[in-house]
Amino acid sequence: MTSPSEPKESLSNNPGLHSTPDEATKGYFMQQTMYRIKDPKVSLDFYSRVLGMSLLKRLDFPENKFSLYFMGYENLEAAPTNPTERTVWTFAQKATIELTHNWGTESDPEFKGYHNGNSEPRGFGHIGITVDDTYKACERFERLGVEFMKKPDDGKMKGIAFIRDPDGYLIEIFDLKIIGTVTSTGS
Amino acid sequence: MTSPSEPKESLSNNPGLHSTPDEATKGYFMQQTMYRIKDPKVSLDFYSRVLGMSLLKRLDFPENKFSLYFMGYENLEAAPTNPTERTVWTFAQKATIELTHNWGTESDPEFKGYHNGNSEPRGFGHIGITVDDTYKACERFERLGVEFMKKPDDGKMKGIAFIRDPDGYLIEIFDLKIIGTVTSTGS
Repeated sequence: MTSPSEPKESLSNNPGLHSTPDEATKGYFMQQTMYRIKDPKVSLDFYSRVLGMSLLKRLDFPENKFSLYFMGYENLEAAPTNPTERTVWTFAQKATIELTHNWGTESDPEFKGYHNGNSEPRGFGHIGITVDDTYKACERFERLGVEFMKKPDDGKMKGIAFIRDPDGYLIEIFDLKIIGTVTSTGS
Repeated sequence: MTSPSEPKESLSNNPGLHSTPDEATKGYFMQQTMYRIKDPKVSLDFYSRVLGMSLLKRLDFPENKFSLYFMGYENLEAAPTNPTERTVWTFAQKATIELTHNWGTESDPEFKGYHNGNSEPRGFGHIGITVDDTYKACERFERLGVEFMKKPDDGKMKGIAFIRDPDGYLIEIFDLKIIGTVTSTGS
């Protein structure tokens, strides 16, 4: 379908694609990915201790009974102490995870859990984290009792793993040493 | 619930939270957020022309009949021309969007569309983009015919908007001038 004489990403190979970003979008950046979690105690442990993220900002909304936890790979030494300034600082960071906790789910025996998007009805798939070394990272995850959907040597895609967060959301794990060759069937 | 004498993000206010990232996680970064799309022609137009992203990398997997489109706010002049090197370059970027196209959905009259995670069963909520000026950005989105779930002046959260991508996924729009005050009920 694509012309071999053109890069796969060229305009001619990708109907709909526009090449030059509109000036009006200058400075835009992808700031957050939001999903819902059952229990912040469990998720904070996972995202900080296991994945190495920090709590950039927490916002509580008592009137609507929910809290937001912004997690990310930023150095907290740069975070302002003033709460409002810390919010602005957080929203100035790229690539944060926004965990939404609707109060009470963590202790509600009727709560059935959240949907990770990979069974019907499908939609969202996963987030992905670039690590230094997939095998080394996954050995550590195994020691820490993390649940795997795919270990690095399972299946055809050697060197790519999928782990599950406490709510069952999928997190892809890969490194830059292996990603070029492992995806070469698709490139 | 939280101690007013401590920052809301402190360890004592957040059971489960660990403060010092494990050395083993050094260098990790949040690289991608994946969701499925019905029609790449429509989504590429939306993410490039409307939101100003570029196609960083495309990967096709004919055996399993799907393609991946990595979109992001990166300057393509920095992208290597060699396909494998371009993959590695893409996976070295923070905060990309990975759009998965399962071939055929765009022309399948039986295809019911994807689930955006905000009605039952819930899970994923949205992505969020920091813009220079929410009102200015939203005026442009209106001119371009973008569908809104919330315009900036709807509801209580003035200055924050939610738009829909072609598959109905929600995208939050905010700017750094307003985010501190508009969320101050929660800070």
